[in-house]
Amino acid sequence: MRLLTLMPKLASLQDPVLQARLQERLANKTMPAGALGQIARLGLQLGLIQGTDRPQITNTAIILFAADHGVANRGVSAFPKAVTAQMVLNFLNGGAAINVFARSNKIQLYIVDAGVDYEFVAHPKLIAAKIGPGTRDFSGGPAMTDAQCEQAIERGMNIVDTLAAQTQWQALGFGEMGIGNSSSAAALTARMLNQPIEACVGRGTGVDDTGLAHKTAVLRQALALHSGATTALDLLARLGGFEIAMMVGAMLAAARRRMAIVIDGFIVTSALLVAQQLRPAVREYCVFAHRSSEAGHTLALQALGAEPLLDLGLRLGEGSGAALAMPLLQNAAAMLSDMASFDSAGVSRA
Amino acid sequence: MRLLTLMPKLASLQDPVLQARLQERLANKTMPAGALGQIARLGLQLGLIQGTDRPQITNTAIILFAADHGVANRGVSAFPKAVTAQMVLNFLNGGAAINVFARSNKIQLYIVDAGVDYEFVAHPKLIAAKIGPGTRDFSGGPAMTDAQCEQAIERGMNIVDTLAAQTQWQALGFGEMGIGNSSSAAALTARMLNQPIEACVGRGTGVDDTGLAHKTAVLRQALALHSGATTALDLLARLGGFEIAMMVGAMLAAARRRMAIVIDGFIVTSALLVAQQLRPAVREYCVFAHRSSEAGHTLALQALGAEPLLDLGLRLGEGSGAALAMPLLQNAAAMLSDMASFDSAGVSRA
Repeated sequence: MRLLTLMPKLASLQDPVLQARLQERLANKTMPAGALGQIARLGLQLGLIQGTDRPQITNTAIILFAADHGVANRGVSAFPKAVTAQMVLNFLNGGAAINVFARSNKIQLYIVDAGVDYEFVAHPKLIAAKIGPGTRDFSGGPAMTDAQCEQAIERGMNIVDTLAAQTQWQALGFGEMGIGNSSSAAALTARMLNQPIEACVGRGTGVDDTGLAHKTAVLRQALALHSGATTALDLLARLGGFEIAMMVGAMLAAARRRMAIVIDGFIVTSALLVAQQLRPAVREYCVFAHRSSEAGHTLALQALGAEPLLDLGLRLGEGSGAALAMPLLQNAAAMLSDMASFDSAGVSRA
Repeated sequence: MRLLTLMPKLASLQDPVLQARLQERLANKTMPAGALGQIARLGLQLGLIQGTDRPQITNTAIILFAADHGVANRGVSAFPKAVTAQMVLNFLNGGAAINVFARSNKIQLYIVDAGVDYEFVAHPKLIAAKIGPGTRDFSGGPAMTDAQCEQAIERGMNIVDTLAAQTQWQALGFGEMGIGNSSSAAALTARMLNQPIEACVGRGTGVDDTGLAHKTAVLRQALALHSGATTALDLLARLGGFEIAMMVGAMLAAARRRMAIVIDGFIVTSALLVAQQLRPAVREYCVFAHRSSEAGHTLALQALGAEPLLDLGLRLGEGSGAALAMPLLQNAAAMLSDMASFDSAGVSRA
């Protein structure tokens, strides 16, 4: 398959020499051993990603991938499908939560039209990469063709490569928007983790109990229809969304460029489950921003051995959790780079 | 008692009209109801503190109170007592974790010598407020006299009032340094919460199992000695530290000035337990930065009904957790102030 040759080989971050150097540098910082907990582990990971014992996180971005979903026509979401396009316009006008958080935390923000059912006029922050005006309803057939799926992954890689040629970000957050996409994520997660759909489905933007039962029934039916699919790429084409497939490619390109990949919530994590099947080393580049209140997310985080930074009951998407967590990456890198050592500061050891 | 007349009355933040206005403003933001979880609750609290439905967190500071503890001579800490002064010098030279985090997050940082056993030369970031060269060993008698305790509380109030006259911070974080002060915090927490010392004592800067058993035995002995003390002020004088008492006063002054009080870890929280006894409304001004890995902190957070923002296994003190959480306050306030509404953005509702 052409795609498999396009997809980058990824360097594993297992580097015992650098790891030891980082551990030693950390042990000499003026603080008790282990006193910074997860912040220290994050600093070590950033050092390994950047191949240095003095990592820096000074340039960061979030790419928000938006697309429509045919399954939204089955009434699986609390919001009408038109909201996908409306929210993209809101992102471009700077009025959404992700805009506010990105501004507050000095994160560049780009919006990708991966397949929204709307024709947007050009905008400096909008990347036109439409695969089609939304996927087909995957409860009645594959969400996309294999060719569309490959095209989406390839465009995702190209978007990161093109943007990164202009600015070298050290951390790239992922966000998404797409009415219906928590249904795609639930179906993908259930199959990728071999879990019952009931354990992976959630309220998304806020369906009530009746809505949740309906969403679950639709997804059960869809999974039965696609039970023959086995490979990650096949599952992605049948159950995914254009934004999810595009994120798979973008994650691989970000890892190849040795960026920290900041994983947002449930939908972004479902893309990572696929990306990890394709290139397992991508996992080593991932920082998990938060634990979403979607139950399926906790299962996915467990399967990934992930230790999320925040647990604030978020379930907004857009990359909002990634934006909120970004300062922690900056702090963790600065800690390793800028803190004094016991010797340099003249502080006695334990 | 003179102090009780000095201590400010605090306005309660129970304001049903503003609360309703904030809830309505939040409900109109372009996102599903409840999708920002704890960030939305934080935004509401900041609005109530500032008395507006458009809170702003643009000017922030952390005051780090340092003091020595006589009980350190009983071998309750993994580090020698001299480290308190050494770390103050490290803070003034900008080399500690709190310096790095404060710089990264654009937080002003001040260091208070509340009672360190060292004569510091003047420094623009050092506030000289020494009550004495450290407390007495509270396992053999009261840590300080009642007069010293009152003096420390009063100085804490004055420090905040003086600094705040120069810059109006909307959020003030609290940090501390003092070899031995997790012993004070454990003893205070045990008495304030009526919990056994074993449930409140922890490893502090990292004592081993033998050290923990010794620390627990010293504290058990101290609590027996001071079992006659009943009021919060009496317990503070007998079991506290100069930095803990000074933080009590500083918290009350910060609340009077309607700042958000950003509570760091176990030791800062022990000061809040006392402050809350003196002026219960102070609790409404508190944002809890993180859950420390000291077991007693979880008990205190429960007793306060607190919902900490971070849970990263931190146990460093210095205000490091407060610094790491500060961007979340900025983001939460900006969300309420700057996000578009469904109507203004033309986004359909659920």
